Amino acid sequence: MNITGKRIAVLVADDFEDIELTEPREELAMAGAETFIIGIEAGVVVKGKHGTTVEVEQAAAEVSEFDFDLLLVPGGQGPEKLRLDAGVLDLVRRFDDAGKPIAAICHAPLVLVSAGRADGRRMTAYRGVREDVANAGAEVVDEPVVIDGNIITSRNPEDIPQFVEAIVEILQ
Amino acid sequence: MNITGKRIAVLVADDFEDIELTEPREELAMAGAETFIIGIEAGVVVKGKHGTTVEVEQAAAEVSEFDFDLLLVPGGQGPEKLRLDAGVLDLVRRFDDAGKPIAAICHAPLVLVSAGRADGRRMTAYRGVREDVANAGAEVVDEPVVIDGNIITSRNPEDIPQFVEAIVEILQ
Repeated sequence: MNITGKRIAVLVADDFEDIELTEPREELAMAGAETFIIGIEAGVVVKGKHGTTVEVEQAAAEVSEFDFDLLLVPGGQGPEKLRLDAGVLDLVRRFDDAGKPIAAICHAPLVLVSAGRADGRRMTAYRGVREDVANAGAEVVDEPVVIDGNIITSRNPEDIPQFVEAIVEILQ
Repeated sequence: MNITGKRIAVLVADDFEDIELTEPREELAMAGAETFIIGIEAGVVVKGKHGTTVEVEQAAAEVSEFDFDLLLVPGGQGPEKLRLDAGVLDLVRRFDDAGKPIAAICHAPLVLVSAGRADGRRMTAYRGVREDVANAGAEVVDEPVVIDGNIITSRNPEDIPQFVEAIVEILQ
């Protein structure tokens, strides 16, 4: 599997689940992709639940969906902040409208909920918020990775291998 | 205000928001109430997001609603675990069926969602999950404390003074 030159936007906010950023980023880099940190505000240093820090290279509101091949959203408590930002929700909708892949793990499907893009989609999510994704109109299932068109979702850090595999496949 | 002898069940799971347990507990004790730690499993030590530890005195499934005057649910990530436990949801429904007060702050309104007791209620919640409470059928407002019959809800740690005041008043 080779995804050399593919550009992946990674959408983060404070209290993201560290390993859901670091592990996919490392594996995707090894497969040849470039990852870019996108957030609510450019230049801000964002901190994970367990202390990982990353600097936001570009604000979601300024990002063109056409500069990237995929939008990756780690979980943790970051998505609770991302889902309140108009620029983030607009970016998610633009990616989705362009048919570009969006990969959301753990709590990140809540960002799709707030963007109004969960309704009618087949998805999974972290167990503790699955009911909220279903209440937003998604068909929620308990599987390690769920692919519905351009939407890839996974449940938790244990699913990272299958989640990354699905990302690599969709980028072929 | 005197609530001497009132018995308050405090419902916690790992990763609760420490101050939403410790501060109400201290203030309610000063006002004369007794608090009891209830959880998913008796005897287990539960740890807050910031390190506070408490031992679960009684499992939710074993608690009689008639032994207590009010059910208090702190927020944080504890409610995501509580909402998945059948014994917890049953206890919430029994409190509600008995018309006993339930006070939920921050993420804790999600427990009312999963118990099926948010629909049609006027409530508030932590900003990042307010949409989920609304999607479950609640009328969600942005106020420091909301009282709808026996249901008291607040948004975050800054609302603790008004939240505790409402608890003390309902216990008169």
